[in-house]
Amino acid sequence: MRTGIWLVGARGSVAVTSVVGALALRAGLVEPTGCVTELPALRSPALPGYADLVFGGHDIAPTPIVKKAEALAAAGVLPARLVTALPDELASVEDEIRPVPAAARQADVIAALVADLTSFRHRHRLDRVVVVNVSATEPAPAPHPGHTDLAALEQALTTGATVLPPSSAYAYAAFTAGCSFVDFTPSTGARLPALAELAQRERVPYAGHDGKTGETLVKSVLAPMFALRNLKVRTWSGVNLLGGGDGANLAEPAANAAKAASKQRVLGETLGYVPQGNTRIEYVDDIGDFKTAWDLITFSGFLGTAMRMEFTWHGCDSALAAPLVLDLARLTATAHRTGRSGPLGELAFFFKDPLGTGPHSLPEQWATLCAFVRQLDADAFGAAVPPPVEQG
Amino acid sequence: MRTGIWLVGARGSVAVTSVVGALALRAGLVEPTGCVTELPALRSPALPGYADLVFGGHDIAPTPIVKKAEALAAAGVLPARLVTALPDELASVEDEIRPVPAAARQADVIAALVADLTSFRHRHRLDRVVVVNVSATEPAPAPHPGHTDLAALEQALTTGATVLPPSSAYAYAAFTAGCSFVDFTPSTGARLPALAELAQRERVPYAGHDGKTGETLVKSVLAPMFALRNLKVRTWSGVNLLGGGDGANLAEPAANAAKAASKQRVLGETLGYVPQGNTRIEYVDDIGDFKTAWDLITFSGFLGTAMRMEFTWHGCDSALAAPLVLDLARLTATAHRTGRSGPLGELAFFFKDPLGTGPHSLPEQWATLCAFVRQLDADAFGAAVPPPVEQG
Amino acid sequence: MRTGIWLVGARGSVAVTSVVGALALRAGLVEPTGCVTELPALRSPALPGYADLVFGGHDIAPTPIVKKAEALAAAGVLPARLVTALPDELASVEDEIRPVPAAARQADVIAALVADLTSFRHRHRLDRVVVVNVSATEPAPAPHPGHTDLAALEQALTTGATVLPPSSAYAYAAFTAGCSFVDFTPSTGARLPALAELAQRERVPYAGHDGKTGETLVKSVLAPMFALRNLKVRTWSGVNLLGGGDGANLAEPAANAAKAASKQRVLGETLGYVPQGNTRIEYVDDIGDFKTAWDLITFSGFLGTAMRMEFTWHGCDSALAAPLVLDLARLTATAHRTGRSGPLGELAFFFKDPLGTGPHSLPEQWATLCAFVRQLDADAFGAAVPPPVEQG
Amino acid sequence: MRTGIWLVGARGSVAVTSVVGALALRAGLVEPTGCVTELPALRSPALPGYADLVFGGHDIAPTPIVKKAEALAAAGVLPARLVTALPDELASVEDEIRPVPAAARQADVIAALVADLTSFRHRHRLDRVVVVNVSATEPAPAPHPGHTDLAALEQALTTGATVLPPSSAYAYAAFTAGCSFVDFTPSTGARLPALAELAQRERVPYAGHDGKTGETLVKSVLAPMFALRNLKVRTWSGVNLLGGGDGANLAEPAANAAKAASKQRVLGETLGYVPQGNTRIEYVDDIGDFKTAWDLITFSGFLGTAMRMEFTWHGCDSALAAPLVLDLARLTATAHRTGRSGPLGELAFFFKDPLGTGPHSLPEQWATLCAFVRQLDADAFGAAVPPPVEQG
Ligand SMILES: NC(=O)c1ccc[n+]([C@@H]2O[C@H](COP(=O)([O-])OP(=O)(O)OC[C@H]3O[C@@H](n4cnc5c(N)ncnc54)[C@H](O)[C@@H]3O)[C@@H](O)[C@H]2O)c1
Ligand SMILES: NC(=O)c1ccc[n+]([C@@H]2O[C@H](COP(=O)([O-])OP(=O)(O)OC[C@H]3O[C@@H](n4cnc5c(N)ncnc54)[C@H](O)[C@@H]3O)[C@@H](O)[C@H]2O)c1
Ligand SMILES: NC(=O)c1ccc[n+]([C@@H]2O[C@H](COP(=O)([O-])OP(=O)(O)OC[C@H]3O[C@@H](n4cnc5c(N)ncnc54)[C@H](O)[C@@H]3O)[C@@H](O)[C@H]2O)c1
Ligand SMILES: NC(=O)c1ccc[n+]([C@@H]2O[C@H](COP(=O)([O-])OP(=O)(O)OC[C@H]3O[C@@H](n4cnc5c(N)ncnc54)[C@H](O)[C@@H]3O)[C@@H](O)[C@H]2O)c1
Ligand code: NA
Ligand code: NA
Repeated sequence: MRTGIWLVGARGSVAVTSVVGALALRAGLVEPTGCVTELPALRSPALPGYADLVFGGHDIAPTPIVKKAEALAAAGVLPARLVTALPDELASVEDEIRPVPAAARQADVIAALVADLTSFRHRHRLDRVVVVNVSATEPAPAPHPGHTDLAALEQALTTGATVLPPSSAYAYAAFTAGCSFVDFTPSTGARLPALAELAQRERVPYAGHDGKTGETLVKSVLAPMFALRNLKVRTWSGVNLLGGGDGANLAEPAANAAKAASKQRVLGETLGYVPQGNTRIEYVDDIGDFKTAWDLITFSGFLGTAMRMEFTWHGCDSALAAPLVLDLARLTATAHRTGRSGPLGELAFFFKDPLGTGPHSLPEQWATLCAFVRQLDADAFGAAVPPPVEQG
Repeated sequence: MRTGIWLVGARGSVAVTSVVGALALRAGLVEPTGCVTELPALRSPALPGYADLVFGGHDIAPTPIVKKAEALAAAGVLPARLVTALPDELASVEDEIRPVPAAARQADVIAALVADLTSFRHRHRLDRVVVVNVSATEPAPAPHPGHTDLAALEQALTTGATVLPPSSAYAYAAFTAGCSFVDFTPSTGARLPALAELAQRERVPYAGHDGKTGETLVKSVLAPMFALRNLKVRTWSGVNLLGGGDGANLAEPAANAAKAASKQRVLGETLGYVPQGNTRIEYVDDIGDFKTAWDLITFSGFLGTAMRMEFTWHGCDSALAAPLVLDLARLTATAHRTGRSGPLGELAFFFKDPLGTGPHSLPEQWATLCAFVRQLDADAFGAAVPPPVEQG
Repeated sequence: MRTGIWLVGARGSVAVTSVVGALALRAGLVEPTGCVTELPALRSPALPGYADLVFGGHDIAPTPIVKKAEALAAAGVLPARLVTALPDELASVEDEIRPVPAAARQADVIAALVADLTSFRHRHRLDRVVVVNVSATEPAPAPHPGHTDLAALEQALTTGATVLPPSSAYAYAAFTAGCSFVDFTPSTGARLPALAELAQRERVPYAGHDGKTGETLVKSVLAPMFALRNLKVRTWSGVNLLGGGDGANLAEPAANAAKAASKQRVLGETLGYVPQGNTRIEYVDDIGDFKTAWDLITFSGFLGTAMRMEFTWHGCDSALAAPLVLDLARLTATAHRTGRSGPLGELAFFFKDPLGTGPHSLPEQWATLCAFVRQLDADAFGAAVPPPVEQG
Repeated sequence: MRTGIWLVGARGSVAVTSVVGALALRAGLVEPTGCVTELPALRSPALPGYADLVFGGHDIAPTPIVKKAEALAAAGVLPARLVTALPDELASVEDEIRPVPAAARQADVIAALVADLTSFRHRHRLDRVVVVNVSATEPAPAPHPGHTDLAALEQALTTGATVLPPSSAYAYAAFTAGCSFVDFTPSTGARLPALAELAQRERVPYAGHDGKTGETLVKSVLAPMFALRNLKVRTWSGVNLLGGGDGANLAEPAANAAKAASKQRVLGETLGYVPQGNTRIEYVDDIGDFKTAWDLITFSGFLGTAMRMEFTWHGCDSALAAPLVLDLARLTATAHRTGRSGPLGELAFFFKDPLGTGPHSLPEQWATLCAFVRQLDADAFGAAVPPPVEQG
């Protein structure tokens, strides 16, 4: 299954790490560390192979991806040897990156996006194209009546107005072009009733929101631990220090607020109550593409005894995100192929702020994901496939 | 169901916290924080109520439990108001604590232990008695042929020899007296083939080993997180600073080795490989009944990027252990009543070094425990009971 | 030397801990842990003894100090036995606490404050009275021409206007009544040119600002370490989680800004440049009278190698502040007696944001303080006193 | 002043980082970050410039230093660009590295070492040669009568016996060849009465022991902080996880014991009492040339309130050590030139376990060092030099 992955924000850290990694995997230069679809419990013949993936994308920035890859290597995000080993492959991806179309009317912008997607699919004879949003987080948009009703949205677009935030315009274009859509960012993306309607009409699936890679990942296993032991969490307070392009952007209060909210949701949903405390994000240029998060948890046990835990997480966000981008693209394309449409709540495992109402506990999300992949297999091959070996 | 809980080490921190807590729960003075059998998913009418519990036990120490309770209150382990509120109740438990019988021949010691248990059961007209080992951790015993074969063991005991370490003598006595047995410590306890044979013969169930209350509890959720995300853990190294009676004892190299081994098992079993690093235990008198553990985890992600996490856990061991002692006693007594015998692998959720070959991941252990409790219910009431509300 | 200590905010945590501690020291019930004037290098016969201290103060709150002391004991700030051991002594202090006078004209408020101070001095036949501000931090005041010029200030007060923030009104009253003044808070206090003029005219000394008790104390030794080793600090970013009355107040952005600024000054002054990063303060009710601060420091060494340090400080602010309040009162009263007036820059050791232009490195401030105390001795006794034993 | 620096362990991490750094400083490729003799308060015209330094040394290993430098670059210890920029300079140093002479009789080994040193001095027409021990830490030697008396030592050597541990043989050879000696390791080195005698006889100075680069550096500022605030430290317990060649070696119990002891000395000497707790060293291959240390400090304040602090230090040992090696060599050579001999207690600032009985507090050691450098200046130029600008 030749599968296109169209990256919105294709020149950014996550996108370029995903591209270098996929090319390196295809060339057999690295192990698939961090790719969850490579775990025994999730490995599936229904998913497209790395050799079947073709990359393209949009970005507003002009930096060539090989320059970005070199910068990421200098920052310790990926090994320099991979960049030098893959010059032709990177050049081919470079050829498929388009500037973001500009037009006075948003309808025209969307039409140009659709044209870029359609042309990409035809040029490479792709079975499926997944659009993955890994562009900079945008502020929450002002409400608009077109957001809640597809007819109203289409009508508003005919007036020439700019009704949708960029991430939602990409989702609109993706659905219109018959592409599935993954939102790895906390932006609005497909999260508007009008777009849900559109996805159903076009019979395409979508997934989101906001890749779960650091502090929230840890929360999604620690919060259940306290819950399962009937310990009462009193405070959960954290700070995220991060650099890189994403850090600078998230230091903007508007973008920050969206992100911080999706980071705390897991606590309320897992514990059944919201402990005291906040999650703050601070931009620290020196930390570069890494992130340092510190969390303090105070809790009480039997007879009220006060206890505490703290953790420091020092992760490389792009290295954590990129394999999940590949996983999500492979899973969503396969979901599309096997006839799924609408929100893929089964992919909650990957997200801070998942679509739907599923559990926020990582192990429960894992169980759901395993069942989903087994079902994809069954659907793809028209028969029950043997259950995979369990992952310890 | 009137249920006896016979505490080996009845004057120690865990035992006295368990006793004060159970009495306070019965009197409605506290919430059951930390008691997992009080979570909606595990609450069961088949379990004995707090008012049905009667406590007794053995200890080598002479300190009255009310004195120990006052010391625990001064150390911040439990509220002083509970000790003053329950004078008569504590005095009744005090009346049921016996010195450890002394005799030249181990067979005679065991016979005296059996007599203490039997007399406790008759005096209080108890349906079931659970013996719970919460005494000081003992060094690993020298091997003896009697350990692996019940006939050889019984034969050896007739010679007057001391064949069993104390914890196993307690297990032997418990089984002989028709009592179930829970080993909350890393000592040998029932973990000898000869004793497994005895438990089967006497048709009594048993559970163990080594209550999972601190660093290992955290490991049992963090290690699966790394595994489910296909991240490669390179180092996991930790230090446990602890005071209290247990700390002083564990600083002894022999006891320490037993404990440290059971603390690292979870990593190998969950990750499928053993990362570098050790777990060390150090006695620090000033930390008292609290424990501070620090763990460093280094791991690599996509394309080999090096990352790290560290956590500090500052817990009160007795406050974490005591509610689990009550949970275990209630569950084991009910298992006994519903006809179970032999090792209760379904209780792995509670232990660092569980009996059997089940998973070491906390969420998987939780699922097993939920199913077990539902089955106890069914068995106790002769019919399917409605599944309880799920716990977030 | 009978010395009065007049506490502004006399019913607050710091004030009550200071009072209980001084009474307990006088009664020989405790060691003077945390009192720096009890170190061999600073012990001085010129300072008033604990038996010479008489307490009084103002507060807007009505809670009796014995109630506050009991609450502090329940929160683990001080031992309950001290509160029960000192009923009469605490009652005597209670008798000397006055409500904050209310009047339409600020001049009349100040006159009433002066009357309270004068009456306190006469009633107890005190040689000296030190007014110590330990009341809630107030927002920075709007600028006013009367702040920079004493004549203009006096003129403005005659109009009935409210020209000064409360902390400065207390300083004004103290100076007018011939009392020295210590500002333990980050509020404006005596830090106005007009008040500096007044202190000089009335020939009284004053000290401030903002007691250095936690994260800033650590900074004042770690920042010099990096500087003396010629290591380049790149980021210093911290978060302070605190509860208690002070925490709730500091969570107000205006008060918070004053405090955060005084916390970062030490870095610029010690390192010679300001690294990236911020200090944030967050109110977490559950932490009570304790404070947890976490700081991340990234730095580079030889050939640019990137390194990092992080620390967590878990301190009881009142327990750290109270002995310094006693030290400052004893030192300032003695400075007054030996004829000093104006700002006491030599007391920078005690403050986050010290008056004057002295060094911010703790060891240098210590050396200055030692010399100052030796000079006080000399002045008090009209002759050289033997240099005290050096403190390791 | 042309100055030779003879590195014992010349192919090790610290040595090679020192060499690359000195060559890069000479070539103007880097800033002197981490070099304390480049701070305004210590900069001195009496010290040899980087262009005046000539390197040589002994090592038992055969790896060329350029290979080691490349490995250090790959590990992030130094920038790869420096290695490629300095090929000829590194080759010249390579030419001056000698294997460790082998002989049956220790006297012959020492004679060969002396010959190597003398030939190095003559070949490069060096005014002074400093021998710096940066070789692997050795176990403490068995006592021998020759250690305490020079005559006995010389006598014993004539018998052909091996009397001295290697580090002391190097010191013996250095003194005999008229070279000064710096021991950067915890090995015995010059720390034997017989060698003190020899140094005095040969009129050469020496410095040591054990470079203070990580956890102990932090202790040397934090311990005084607690002392100056009269806070009672109850526990100070730490763990050092380290990789690299030094880590593997220190994991040997004998070497480890020497190091751990020198790490705790600072506490006893600074606080005046020894708190509970230990410092442990653990080898973790994955950490490479970096080190992660974690320390927990519990302390009590006013009225006994219990508080705590913890810190994590993540440093690159070689990057911290190398600039100090250059500082020490420049200072010791100048001390030699200006006529000093015997132990240089004034260099305690640099060492975990300094010679002599000076203070262990970093700021006090700094003041001593400043005075020492000013005196070197005066002695070198025969007249008072203006005091340098103070360092904040
Ligand atoms: N890395 C992680 O762990 C992680 C986790 C969750 C979410 N995310 C989200 O992923 C996104 C990408 O992160 P990153 O670190 O790669 O950021 P980045 O700043 O390196 O890259 C973002 C890219 O988006 C481009 N861009 C901005 N506006 C655009 C537009 N309108 N159309 C097309 N391209 C546009 C930018 O030019 C840039 O190249 C962010 O929104 C981030 O919040 C990342
Ligand atoms: N608290 C926890 O979180 C936790 C977790 C896992 C395991 N454990 C284990 O629980 C046990 C109890 O811990 P604790 O903190 O209460 O210790 P403790 O030292 O306070 O109490 C142990 C008690 O056992 C008694 N004892 C010793 N030898 C005995 C014997 N032969 N027969 C009867 N009594 C004997 C002692 O006198 C003492 O009263 C320890 O083995 C510990 O390792 C505790
Ligand atoms: N505790 C520390 O370590 C520390 C360090 C530096 C500075 N401080 C400062 O010390 C002050 C006291 O701290 P705390 O923890 O005791 O706070 P707190 O809230 O417990 O006490 C403050 C007291 O001030 C009283 N008050 C408020 N406004 C007043 C007014 N106008 N006149 C008189 N009284 C008034 C309040 O009623 C309260 O009793 C704060 O400003 C704090 O920022 C404390
Ligand atoms: N790096 C630091 O921060 C620091 C701090 C204090 C002390 N030290 C000490 O500095 C020394 C060097 O540390 P490193 O990290 O460079 O270690 P390393 O293992 O990288 O280097 C040691 C070198 O010594 C050589 N060697 C061993 N025995 C020898 C002998 N008998 N004669 C000559 N050479 C010999 C080895 O071959 C190796 O090349 C160690 O003793 C260490 O404890 C280092
Ligand atoms: Na930490
Ligand atoms: Na920490």
